Amino acid sequence: MAERMSLVLFSGTVDKLMAASILATGAAAMGMEVDVFLTTWGIEAFRKDAYKTNRRVSSDYADYAPVMLEAMAAKKAPSWMENLLGARDIGAVHIAACSMTMELFNLKLDDLESIVDEVTGVATFIERARESKITLFI
Amino acid sequence: MAERMSLVLFSGTVDKLMAASILATGAAAMGMEVDVFLTTWGIEAFRKDAYKTNRRVSSDYADYAPVMLEAMAAKKAPSWMENLLGARDIGAVHIAACSMTMELFNLKLDDLESIVDEVTGVATFIERARESKITLFI
Amino acid sequence: MAERMSLVLFSGTVDKLMAASILATGAAAMGMEVDVFLTTWGIEAFRKDAYKTNRRVSSDYADYAPVMLEAMAAKKAPSWMENLLGARDIGAVHIAACSMTMELFNLKLDDLESIVDEVTGVATFIERARESKITLFI
Repeated sequence: MAERMSLVLFSGTVDKLMAASILATGAAAMGMEVDVFLTTWGIEAFRKDAYKTNRRVSSDYADYAPVMLEAMAAKKAPSWMENLLGARDIGAVHIAACSMTMELFNLKLDDLESIVDEVTGVATFIERARESKITLFI
Repeated sequence: MAERMSLVLFSGTVDKLMAASILATGAAAMGMEVDVFLTTWGIEAFRKDAYKTNRRVSSDYADYAPVMLEAMAAKKAPSWMENLLGARDIGAVHIAACSMTMELFNLKLDDLESIVDEVTGVATFIERARESKITLFI
Repeated sequence: MAERMSLVLFSGTVDKLMAASILATGAAAMGMEVDVFLTTWGIEAFRKDAYKTNRRVSSDYADYAPVMLEAMAAKKAPSWMENLLGARDIGAVHIAACSMTMELFNLKLDDLESIVDEVTGVATFIERARESKITLFI
């Protein structure tokens, strides 16, 4: 059985999404399964088409946001969404959205990007997370 | 021996406290022990009566805060404190406050909500965290 | 082989750096190896001399920042950098900077504080993280 990395993706800012996507890519490249559990602002970030206009950066570093976004554009760095799609191409990346948040925000699976596999409860995530080698809340 | 989930609860915003309480509830429901180590703003959030008026939301999503708080009220979603109390009813949930932060903020155990079990050092948390199946910094 | 704690240090605010340094100190004191992987704002925080003037605090608690910084000064609490240097004195603390972020920000190892050991890719971090007892994203 492949080793697993389980991420709770709570944040919806580009800098944290980028970090999550790089960790997912790295883990997939090493043959690990990757489970991503979207909740709260992580779900907002995966609303259909939202990634195309999302330029939100951690407000702790709001003053650096323009510099970072420009550097990413200048270097033609792949977006976090491209990273995630790439990670899925090379490995097993599973993305689920938290059912409680979905209900709170009146959302259905169809409202999210197609890279999201399903809507599940927290118990399903925990059952798999406790068999994971790496667990992170982002 | 029951499997364990260990959370460092650094944040004091309602959205992250809600995520922590849902993870704690899910883990307790699956028979896991839950250790919560409060530090910094996590301790502020557990000051006596603070939860009754705390409407702080991650500043990354300050513009969505009113929408989220209204949705939670409209859906009559249980508060994070109610979730934690419920998790304790069904399982083993242990909440400790970081002794270094308590000293820094001139706080005593009596200054916190009674759901906080004790004040401990970081070594005690780590000793138990390293035997945990899931470790998260929230 | 010593047990290991692996931290992804994404944040660059003094309050989170302090939490990371205290966790590192606690783990080192218990004989654990500590791996720190700096990325994004975590790298900014380790730029040469940056720690001497960094007074950034989580914007979620911007209103409490002056109180916390004054309390830390009044109590003569060691800085997060002093904690990390102390942790290294008593144990095995390894600090690496994410090569992708370094390239994005046009940085070289020489631009960072000497406590940073090397620049590595995410795969190297994950390879060690998956053998860790504690994994946290800060």
